[in-house]
Amino acid sequence: MKGNEAIAEAALRAGAEGYFCYPITPQSEVAEYLSRRMPELGRVFLQAESEVAVSNMLFGAASTGKRVFTTSSSPGISLMQEAISYMAGALLPVVIVNIMRGGPGLGGILPAQSDYFQATKGGGHGDYRVLVLAPSSIQEAVDLMMLAFHLADKYRNPIMMIGDGMIGQMMEPVEFPDDYKEPPLPPKDWAATGARGREPVIIKSLFLDPLLLEKNALIMHQKYEQMKREEIRFELYKINPKNKILIVAYGTMARICQTAIDELESEGTSVGLFRPITLFPFPEKDINKEAKKKNIRAVLTIEMSLAQMMEDVEKAVLGAKPVKFFGRTGGIVPSPDEVKEEVLKLIKEKTRSTGKTKQN
Amino acid sequence: MKGNEAIAEAALRAGAEGYFCYPITPQSEVAEYLSRRMPELGRVFLQAESEVAVSNMLFGAASTGKRVFTTSSSPGISLMQEAISYMAGALLPVVIVNIMRGGPGLGGILPAQSDYFQATKGGGHGDYRVLVLAPSSIQEAVDLMMLAFHLADKYRNPIMMIGDGMIGQMMEPVEFPDDYKEPPLPPKDWAATGARGREPVIIKSLFLDPLLLEKNALIMHQKYEQMKREEIRFELYKINPKNKILIVAYGTMARICQTAIDELESEGTSVGLFRPITLFPFPEKDINKEAKKKNIRAVLTIEMSLAQMMEDVEKAVLGAKPVKFFGRTGGIVPSPDEVKEEVLKLIKEKTRSTGKTKQN
Amino acid sequence: MKGNEAIAEAALRAGAEGYFCYPITPQSEVAEYLSRRMPELGRVFLQAESEVAVSNMLFGAASTGKRVFTTSSSPGISLMQEAISYMAGALLPVVIVNIMRGGPGLGGILPAQSDYFQATKGGGHGDYRVLVLAPSSIQEAVDLMMLAFHLADKYRNPIMMIGDGMIGQMMEPVEFPDDYKEPPLPPKDWAATGARGREPVIIKSLFLDPLLLEKNALIMHQKYEQMKREEIRFELYKINPKNKILIVAYGTMARICQTAIDELESEGTSVGLFRPITLFPFPEKDINKEAKKKNIRAVLTIEMSLAQMMEDVEKAVLGAKPVKFFGRTGGIVPSPDEVKEEVLKLIKEKTRSTGKTKQN
Amino acid sequence: MKGNEAIAEAALRAGAEGYFCYPITPQSEVAEYLSRRMPELGRVFLQAESEVAVSNMLFGAASTGKRVFTTSSSPGISLMQEAISYMAGALLPVVIVNIMRGGPGLGGILPAQSDYFQATKGGGHGDYRVLVLAPSSIQEAVDLMMLAFHLADKYRNPIMMIGDGMIGQMMEPVEFPDDYKEPPLPPKDWAATGARGREPVIIKSLFLDPLLLEKNALIMHQKYEQMKREEIRFELYKINPKNKILIVAYGTMARICQTAIDELESEGTSVGLFRPITLFPFPEKDINKEAKKKNIRAVLTIEMSLAQMMEDVEKAVLGAKPVKFFGRTGGIVPSPDEVKEEVLKLIKEKTRSTGKTKQN
Repeated sequence: MKGNEAIAEAALRAGAEGYFCYPITPQSEVAEYLSRRMPELGRVFLQAESEVAVSNMLFGAASTGKRVFTTSSSPGISLMQEAISYMAGALLPVVIVNIMRGGPGLGGILPAQSDYFQATKGGGHGDYRVLVLAPSSIQEAVDLMMLAFHLADKYRNPIMMIGDGMIGQMMEPVEFPDDYKEPPLPPKDWAATGARGREPVIIKSLFLDPLLLEKNALIMHQKYEQMKREEIRFELYKINPKNKILIVAYGTMARICQTAIDELESEGTSVGLFRPITLFPFPEKDINKEAKKKNIRAVLTIEMSLAQMMEDVEKAVLGAKPVKFFGRTGGIVPSPDEVKEEVLKLIKEKTRSTGKTKQN
Repeated sequence: MKGNEAIAEAALRAGAEGYFCYPITPQSEVAEYLSRRMPELGRVFLQAESEVAVSNMLFGAASTGKRVFTTSSSPGISLMQEAISYMAGALLPVVIVNIMRGGPGLGGILPAQSDYFQATKGGGHGDYRVLVLAPSSIQEAVDLMMLAFHLADKYRNPIMMIGDGMIGQMMEPVEFPDDYKEPPLPPKDWAATGARGREPVIIKSLFLDPLLLEKNALIMHQKYEQMKREEIRFELYKINPKNKILIVAYGTMARICQTAIDELESEGTSVGLFRPITLFPFPEKDINKEAKKKNIRAVLTIEMSLAQMMEDVEKAVLGAKPVKFFGRTGGIVPSPDEVKEEVLKLIKEKTRSTGKTKQN
Repeated sequence: MKGNEAIAEAALRAGAEGYFCYPITPQSEVAEYLSRRMPELGRVFLQAESEVAVSNMLFGAASTGKRVFTTSSSPGISLMQEAISYMAGALLPVVIVNIMRGGPGLGGILPAQSDYFQATKGGGHGDYRVLVLAPSSIQEAVDLMMLAFHLADKYRNPIMMIGDGMIGQMMEPVEFPDDYKEPPLPPKDWAATGARGREPVIIKSLFLDPLLLEKNALIMHQKYEQMKREEIRFELYKINPKNKILIVAYGTMARICQTAIDELESEGTSVGLFRPITLFPFPEKDINKEAKKKNIRAVLTIEMSLAQMMEDVEKAVLGAKPVKFFGRTGGIVPSPDEVKEEVLKLIKEKTRSTGKTKQN
Repeated sequence: MKGNEAIAEAALRAGAEGYFCYPITPQSEVAEYLSRRMPELGRVFLQAESEVAVSNMLFGAASTGKRVFTTSSSPGISLMQEAISYMAGALLPVVIVNIMRGGPGLGGILPAQSDYFQATKGGGHGDYRVLVLAPSSIQEAVDLMMLAFHLADKYRNPIMMIGDGMIGQMMEPVEFPDDYKEPPLPPKDWAATGARGREPVIIKSLFLDPLLLEKNALIMHQKYEQMKREEIRFELYKINPKNKILIVAYGTMARICQTAIDELESEGTSVGLFRPITLFPFPEKDINKEAKKKNIRAVLTIEMSLAQMMEDVEKAVLGAKPVKFFGRTGGIVPSPDEVKEEVLKLIKEKTRSTGKTKQN
């Protein structure tokens, strides 16, 4: 199944009742698939007139307590930043998928990971965060997509899944759970479902009294602290005491690193991989723990972008080991050979520096 | 002179020939002032139909090589994120002022600093950064505003100045340089000024060939590295070997901290202040240097937001000392007394922890 | 049943599967009613972000062969003129209801008939017409609403029903047909329903070859000529050889005239009423026939607007009798007494002029 | 000089200080010309993001008392209908040029006259009219353009000049008045120019009190009646007692008819031409007078559209003579030969019918 279609189907299985979109390469297959399936299921498919419209429709639809989502790609996601901030402020659950393309600006249509900052630090205004999930296979995209709807409801906050065009375009076998069950969730008594027999609810991000606005921000802040405690997800690959280098990479880039690590291993060089699955909350302590191990000479961050996640890795490593960067951007996907070369070069350097790092 | 008017006048003195805006509290006085002054000077004042329109007009106007700018407040800036990414990708000089209000969403209209992440990490998509200036007085707002236009041209990149509503609304005496002279700048031979007698220029962020897109991203990346070398600005206040605590604060918040520090000093407690003036590039090494000094027991980040700059401070301090946070948000401005109380509490705790920090 | 709700229910009975709207007084009850009923029936209710969006959504939805419609009021209808022209050019069936309010511009919210020109002459560009239906009671609004969908499909052309705020707001008993059956219609083989097993269809108004564009215009022109032959509808009230004056009035205005005519009759003055039900095609010949009758001294056009329909009446009467005008506008509904006074004044004048008329 | 450029230059000479536009074939040369000239003169050139934006900017700019205008083509003009209604209701002077292309919908880009209804009957809502000027040469376009600004100020009402693509694209010698002087106009004391030293003015189309809204409509109605008395303009060509046929045609179409008339004359057939220059107010009485002349056997309306002006001609002739129609549409310009053929066929028919006409 193609990645984009698998993501769409996963949303259906998770009970998404509304999908709002504006077409943009490389994720238009999601819209194509849902334009057929949503009406068949009596659910809402809506292609709006712009991403600004899409994101405000999400606000309205999420207010009714229904599971709703959108998918887009980099420039489209930028246009949604105001509304994402509004949805966060109004404590609304919503799922947003960004199948990233090269940027900035119009950029290109090939795969990239260069929206890391936008996703993890928040492209909108105000004290809010978005929980960010980064699958590295289509099966994982399916699983995380279903999880995303659960987390959105659990935290009443926008949840973002980011992938690159390769995740969206490639085909892999995928299994959907036969009998999908989520942990129990509280009733959506906050939703605007018609105020018959009860007091009206008000869903808003406007609080002119600064004490109330701060209170709302603190409620949100608690949620983000809770996410840091409960939602950190990552995967370790071939981590062992012989590792000389710890690679940190996510998404498609992590898969390519696995291939490189396998080949390096067969050639006698041991390298481990730390793959964050949640980018916010970022597995800081876990990376710190791995980086501190005696055998690790350096941490190598590898991205399809220019040293964005590296800032989080540096903050995680806290100077315990040198943090190096390798990456390509603009739609270029580094090959396993490039990764291997970078690792071998790094080992050769026998780096011992403890402080700042440089882009290679 | 009122802060918003001083900012407007500074832009005029720096030669701004086009101003595009959409009204939003608490910065509408800038537009009001310029709606009168720009036409008097034969320059362009334009109130557009939305912030999306404003930001795309900036793109077009900046393409002609003229100095252009906008001012807005938090939600308005979010709506500009796509265009800011486009302008960065097209290597366009432009100045953007964000007089921040409480958020997220519609939030409130009182002063805040909660767009720190958006400004410094980039709310748009792709590998780009925005140089961020944060004045703490009206005189500094004037000086930095004029500098902003120079830096925009020097780097051909969007430059953002962020202030809070207090900077915009309060009145202070301010001096404009009699004879403003900037360091020399290269000719704007890239600008679309009419292709008579030369080849047309093309200003764009679209590069379908990934090698060209990566090349463009690397050109930009070089600029950001150059900014880190050449543009870091900060101010030290009462830094001395008796300091027990190092406060890091910027903008209006830093001024309030100064008052608190003065009072603490007169009461026998020595505290120093590190005030970043550039938020990107962030004065990492300089903070690290101050934090490492033996007499410093802890670093206290104080913000009118919830632990946003603190992430950069933690990354700067690299575990050398505990990093603590104090802040209010949503339009509440901490008083000097609150700051003092926080400092005294921290000293009392005799914190010795080396690792993670918590919000107080 | 309230007029607006009756109109909504009639559309449902006629099989409308999509309703697109933007709220505006005095017709928002239609949207309110359908926001509940459409989802119950598994049909599409969509509140868009503007009337421009609504009208382009109608274009898209009508292209699929589904029965779709919108309701709005005067300024909203103006915003749809471009799209109405596009839909006419693309031969698309669609139903548009205009519950008119006083104008021009923002005007007021009280009942008016001042969009007569816009509706009947075409507010958009190009050689197209819109068939216009004007009910004078809620029962007739129901019947014409159902007819509108039939005519839209029969002619593949936008059909407009216009009423004033009184039709929309007042309550009357209304009967819906138990067993609604329409005359047979040709299959919608032109619709874009997915091109599986057949050639794709193209629905467009763009024809760069002027011969093809003229051909399309002539196809449309034939339809309008056919409408003139087959669709003219009107009602005569108390037409008899004793009539001294022939009143021409439509919609709510006609009902008020009936009251005035009844009272005049009981007072010994015989007046007949010609009530056009279709405003385009206009019952020219039929009015001409009535106006020519010897006993008629003058034709009195009465409108809740300023001498708009009067132009069509003059063209119909072709100078056979003087054509006089009485009307109020801006939300003022003439009373039966005002009508009576106007009639009596006109009889007193014993007008014999054959040519031009004046506004009273 | 090219027609579009001559129109632009005429506007400058008439003192236009603001021009707002959105590009559309076949009038983009106006924008191109003014994009250079307006800034040279220190006036405002603004390309907005849509025609909806353009027309609302016109509203705002006209409110300041400055002479402002726009040019567009058919679909663009449709998008302006709401704002035109608002400007009429707010009593604002503004000049709008429609260089018509084939329609409806996207249509084509070749010359047409098929927006006659939209221009003369009002495409917007409410009781308002637009004075419509129709030049048939570039020199006349220049003269009428300058007149348009005068009439806009005289009547405080939108004035529209309509031409077809041929007027816009062809080149002819043109003279601009050396010393352009207009009749005196009243001071613009209604304009919003800053309320220093006087009461603020309010410019609006909203009147919630129906008596005030009706009063505003009656003020407007008086203006339209005044236009009918003072502004009717037309040209007679080879009108003489030998004429068998009276042609009514305007704009480019009238020029082609002149050529046909000249050729017919040389071949012994006498035909006269009535060329309306104002389309609203329409020279009804003057056409009636010509049509009634004994020698005239029939009136032939010739259009580059499908029997639109013919409705006004029929209403003017009031059944005195048969009114026939010939026209092409969709971008096809009838040749003089086609016109001659039509005239000769009509004479041959020796039509004597007095009533209705048909499209040939």
